[in-house]
Amino acid sequence: MKKLNVAVLGATGYGGGEVLRLLHRDANFEVVFATSRTKAGTPVSAVHRNLEGLSPLKFSDPSVDEIVGGVDFVIGALPHGASAETLAPLVDRGCRVIDLSGDFRLRDKDEYAQWYLHTHVRPDLLAKAVYGCTELNAGKIRNAQLVASPGCFATAINLSLLPAAAKGLLKGTPVVVALTGSSGSGAEAKEGTHHPTRAETLRPYKVLNHQHTPEILQTVRDAGGSIDGISFVPVSAPIVRGIFATVAVDLSGPLDTKGAIVLYQSYYEATGRPFVRVLTTREPECATVARTNFVELRPRVGKDGRLYVITAIDNLVKGAAGQAVESLYLMAGLDAQLPNSGLLCPGMWP
Amino acid sequence: MKKLNVAVLGATGYGGGEVLRLLHRDANFEVVFATSRTKAGTPVSAVHRNLEGLSPLKFSDPSVDEIVGGVDFVIGALPHGASAETLAPLVDRGCRVIDLSGDFRLRDKDEYAQWYLHTHVRPDLLAKAVYGCTELNAGKIRNAQLVASPGCFATAINLSLLPAAAKGLLKGTPVVVALTGSSGSGAEAKEGTHHPTRAETLRPYKVLNHQHTPEILQTVRDAGGSIDGISFVPVSAPIVRGIFATVAVDLSGPLDTKGAIVLYQSYYEATGRPFVRVLTTREPECATVARTNFVELRPRVGKDGRLYVITAIDNLVKGAAGQAVESLYLMAGLDAQLPNSGLLCPGMWP
Amino acid sequence: MKKLNVAVLGATGYGGGEVLRLLHRDANFEVVFATSRTKAGTPVSAVHRNLEGLSPLKFSDPSVDEIVGGVDFVIGALPHGASAETLAPLVDRGCRVIDLSGDFRLRDKDEYAQWYLHTHVRPDLLAKAVYGCTELNAGKIRNAQLVASPGCFATAINLSLLPAAAKGLLKGTPVVVALTGSSGSGAEAKEGTHHPTRAETLRPYKVLNHQHTPEILQTVRDAGGSIDGISFVPVSAPIVRGIFATVAVDLSGPLDTKGAIVLYQSYYEATGRPFVRVLTTREPECATVARTNFVELRPRVGKDGRLYVITAIDNLVKGAAGQAVESLYLMAGLDAQLPNSGLLCPGMWP
Amino acid sequence: MKKLNVAVLGATGYGGGEVLRLLHRDANFEVVFATSRTKAGTPVSAVHRNLEGLSPLKFSDPSVDEIVGGVDFVIGALPHGASAETLAPLVDRGCRVIDLSGDFRLRDKDEYAQWYLHTHVRPDLLAKAVYGCTELNAGKIRNAQLVASPGCFATAINLSLLPAAAKGLLKGTPVVVALTGSSGSGAEAKEGTHHPTRAETLRPYKVLNHQHTPEILQTVRDAGGSIDGISFVPVSAPIVRGIFATVAVDLSGPLDTKGAIVLYQSYYEATGRPFVRVLTTREPECATVARTNFVELRPRVGKDGRLYVITAIDNLVKGAAGQAVESLYLMAGLDAQLPNSGLLCPGMWP
Repeated sequence: MKKLNVAVLGATGYGGGEVLRLLHRDANFEVVFATSRTKAGTPVSAVHRNLEGLSPLKFSDPSVDEIVGGVDFVIGALPHGASAETLAPLVDRGCRVIDLSGDFRLRDKDEYAQWYLHTHVRPDLLAKAVYGCTELNAGKIRNAQLVASPGCFATAINLSLLPAAAKGLLKGTPVVVALTGSSGSGAEAKEGTHHPTRAETLRPYKVLNHQHTPEILQTVRDAGGSIDGISFVPVSAPIVRGIFATVAVDLSGPLDTKGAIVLYQSYYEATGRPFVRVLTTREPECATVARTNFVELRPRVGKDGRLYVITAIDNLVKGAAGQAVESLYLMAGLDAQLPNSGLLCPGMWP
Repeated sequence: MKKLNVAVLGATGYGGGEVLRLLHRDANFEVVFATSRTKAGTPVSAVHRNLEGLSPLKFSDPSVDEIVGGVDFVIGALPHGASAETLAPLVDRGCRVIDLSGDFRLRDKDEYAQWYLHTHVRPDLLAKAVYGCTELNAGKIRNAQLVASPGCFATAINLSLLPAAAKGLLKGTPVVVALTGSSGSGAEAKEGTHHPTRAETLRPYKVLNHQHTPEILQTVRDAGGSIDGISFVPVSAPIVRGIFATVAVDLSGPLDTKGAIVLYQSYYEATGRPFVRVLTTREPECATVARTNFVELRPRVGKDGRLYVITAIDNLVKGAAGQAVESLYLMAGLDAQLPNSGLLCPGMWP
Repeated sequence: MKKLNVAVLGATGYGGGEVLRLLHRDANFEVVFATSRTKAGTPVSAVHRNLEGLSPLKFSDPSVDEIVGGVDFVIGALPHGASAETLAPLVDRGCRVIDLSGDFRLRDKDEYAQWYLHTHVRPDLLAKAVYGCTELNAGKIRNAQLVASPGCFATAINLSLLPAAAKGLLKGTPVVVALTGSSGSGAEAKEGTHHPTRAETLRPYKVLNHQHTPEILQTVRDAGGSIDGISFVPVSAPIVRGIFATVAVDLSGPLDTKGAIVLYQSYYEATGRPFVRVLTTREPECATVARTNFVELRPRVGKDGRLYVITAIDNLVKGAAGQAVESLYLMAGLDAQLPNSGLLCPGMWP
Repeated sequence: MKKLNVAVLGATGYGGGEVLRLLHRDANFEVVFATSRTKAGTPVSAVHRNLEGLSPLKFSDPSVDEIVGGVDFVIGALPHGASAETLAPLVDRGCRVIDLSGDFRLRDKDEYAQWYLHTHVRPDLLAKAVYGCTELNAGKIRNAQLVASPGCFATAINLSLLPAAAKGLLKGTPVVVALTGSSGSGAEAKEGTHHPTRAETLRPYKVLNHQHTPEILQTVRDAGGSIDGISFVPVSAPIVRGIFATVAVDLSGPLDTKGAIVLYQSYYEATGRPFVRVLTTREPECATVARTNFVELRPRVGKDGRLYVITAIDNLVKGAAGQAVESLYLMAGLDAQLPNSGLLCPGMWP
């Protein structure tokens, strides 16, 4: 069978690089464009050094026509703002698009403007986009033209709340403390990822003010969770890969730890998707999911009656490129091939 | 003036080593015994390598009589259980004692048995002990014979809650997520501090079940906080030094962020002690307090009406040896000399 | 085609765990025994957490008969000493064996006794063993009954010297400074891998006295290198995965940097094996080969006329389990299938 | 006694920040100017967060006249190039100056141009400068007007070679492999210190081509070492603080390990300076000297007859600001006060 062609736009960043890695030997998809204006002509392995000798691909700077004519799917890995500008014309031309940026995640353009600090260039497309949380929206993603792949923090926090939300058990404002690895800040060197001051610290940022907040709220409410808001404390951790989230939330109905485990296990089994592991004998941690598409989570009910869920994912795989490739398989109707993709590769221990 | 003599019991561990470092050139105190049964006769610098060439002290194994007759103060740096057994006879003989272990922190022997999993050998001494939180109990510490120096997690969490507790503003069960550096696990190599599996992960442990919980509850209630319990999620972080705590708690009265800052600043100014910095323009983080006795904290009130306090300390200094040395200065009536001690040394950046 | 059966002996360690990972979905091999006396009956994923949900295998403790009767190949991942004792009876019974320990690497039993500090239990087998350096001995490995897979340091240092050795260009005693990640010390917590004292240091050990020295010397001489000895300074580095080696060696004939590059490239091309990358535009580093079977090296000739080679590998993959799986493919006559194994998986960036 | 006034030029960098820390409570010196064009008016603690609450100093931008009229000593902590331009007018006006940059370390302007890639603005001052290696040049530094404080790599490598050089024992070209912590790259975020790609790797740079090479060569030759060159491989390590050097060098006369230890111990004792520790029972490592002015080194003679010296220092203290403060004490004739400075503070373990 001929492979389906894919364009990865903004392919020099970490998100784009992970898409290239995941697809570089894929049996079903072929990346034909890895776009970059500044690096066009350079081998992708000059930037993504792990692909040295493994990918003959070069960065290129194709026109809209070339993309529209040459590919079956577009994966956008551009910064927000630039993403909507670049992807909108492709959507207009009928391309099927998966966007890793935050540009199409929120349905409300005012909320977008409030959190992303600029006006959305194409608010008309917001209603068209399907939020690419594969455990929640697999059915819609299959038929979507435009998928907004979730944020890394959002992925971990959504998955912590969805089963209880779906049962209508949530109330109040969840308290979330979540830590991120430094690769989440992208490939560009900046103050917050300067090794001397990043390597031996834990440092909060955007406290109670992170832009993933509204996308979590929207998703949890979509799933049935009656929550008032999210109080989210993001923290920079001195690891490269990983999101580690602790979520505490008031319950509106009776639930104990045993019941929570059953609820979470049955919810994720019912999705039919293989990535979420509900742990009961050890704790979720970053090392066991790093560099994989897997999710580890463990729910508990405290003496205070609150539900506590601890969740770990890899920020660049399940939190970005891996989840996008899940959507790609769904959109292509190739779910059944998923086990042959790179998404089920184990991580390493240690 | 003749220096006051100090015995450090169990001086091969990290807590004991930090006491030796803090006092090795102190103008007021002289460590005359650094005890160890297995290392007696060995230079302390063979274990605490930072003291190479800087301390002529050797480990020794003095009798109770030698300690009673030879020192003005005893600092215990032994594991809990062993600590009470070793220190009780010295207290009986009239020694003034500061204990870094958890053995004398709880007033209730049943609670001790429940959390430390064995019967207290000398419950009669529990009432005698003063909890060595210097910002709360400086007056009592001055006259104490037996000071129970607080735990590292407890120090960070207590200081996050005390000002609001003292105003009677707390209610419900605070949610605490706190991370610790690996030095908190002590000098003995063990699974949880094995570099290959510790260096690149975040891993929770003793979730909602950490033994510092009752000491925090007791302290906050002593200070006036009407809380029902503490829901505490401890997490192992891949740093060597530091406690980083996020505390979220329901308020029983009106407070906004501005008010919280004023409350916290005035509370800590009123203590007259120089170690707590209430930040308003940047965030507390481990790097700025690592290897110092300082505390950084920042209070906020969220849209959900909860109080959020983020706090950072060094686990071995303010969270152990440094706070014990504060008590030593208080007990000796030498508060005024504190600025000449090593406790006001800045950390490093980076 | 029926898969070939493999037993992994001593499968709880890091080396054994990596073999399990590499073979867990292999098209050609099936691990039927992952042995452990103490963990028999436990799922391998309880120890190798990365295999959670991906491997149904349990540790077992089969008899010699069961192994002899049930498998096509044995991979030993036991500590030296125990390894020879366990593997010798299997070799006697005709099993084809690959040993990850140092027990069969040296041909001289006296040298073994000198470096491993005990008498070899079966010196008669030493002559039978083929040294499993796949770039040097692929032909012999194909027909070997017993393969001694090289040490991690030895692999990096051998590969740094082989092309020049084969040309007869080496003389004198090479100076080697090589750093290792902490996973090289194994799964057992010990002083040298205690996070508080490992995480922020560089610390040499066994200086000029490391047990890989004679195996390198033997290999380089086998390849044609007339060297007098190896002066090897091993250093513990605060990374989990990786060997980073710098080798400086006197030349007995004319060579410049350009010539060295041509020599190294042609040598490794001639092996027909895909894992060694001779770099010319950037430097070898641990991050680009971590968690892969690839080797990066870069040769240079200095103004002093010495050859300098910098080489990076992953200690557990190319330096242990990966190279052993290469031998497995060679012994099974399945070289042509190598690209379908996990050995060509790229690492991650970052 | 009135304190002596000091200006620190370029005080926002890591080197300048360490000078501010070392002098912030010094009994003999007072920093009156901490200069920065862009940060003038800002508290130094806003940049050097460790000084929060401990230093009332603000950055300022004084004129040459204000500096000349207001201070006894100038410490330059500017980038090379800018350093000579800024310091030369102050030297001309009679200021006593210590320069942390590389601008006055080489006596030969052509060599400067070759390694620093631009023409020296004031070659006439090169002959005036004293190289601030305190163990070698204490006498000259006392009377110097202009001290060129050594580079961090150079400090570690010089100290590894000086005793043997002084005995005329060196020949040939030493092989040096030395690793540096990330703080050596300065306070500005850049590619080489981007946490995601720095945290888990070892990466060489400027191989056989580092600009500290000529300053080491000059110093070793000044001390009596007849060496032909230096073959120096610098490597970026994933630590924040530290230089770790391994030096291997051919000997022109007889020496064994025992003799080397005696030679090194007696040489450094004869300097009368307290910072170099010649170890014989454990190895030098970064952790024991990090954040201190101490040096650990251990010499050995290998079976190949070469001298091997392993040396560890802190790059920002002994390798920069601490050594500069040593020169400050020497220039001020205050050697006897050194034990009361911050330079004898122990580091931490762990």
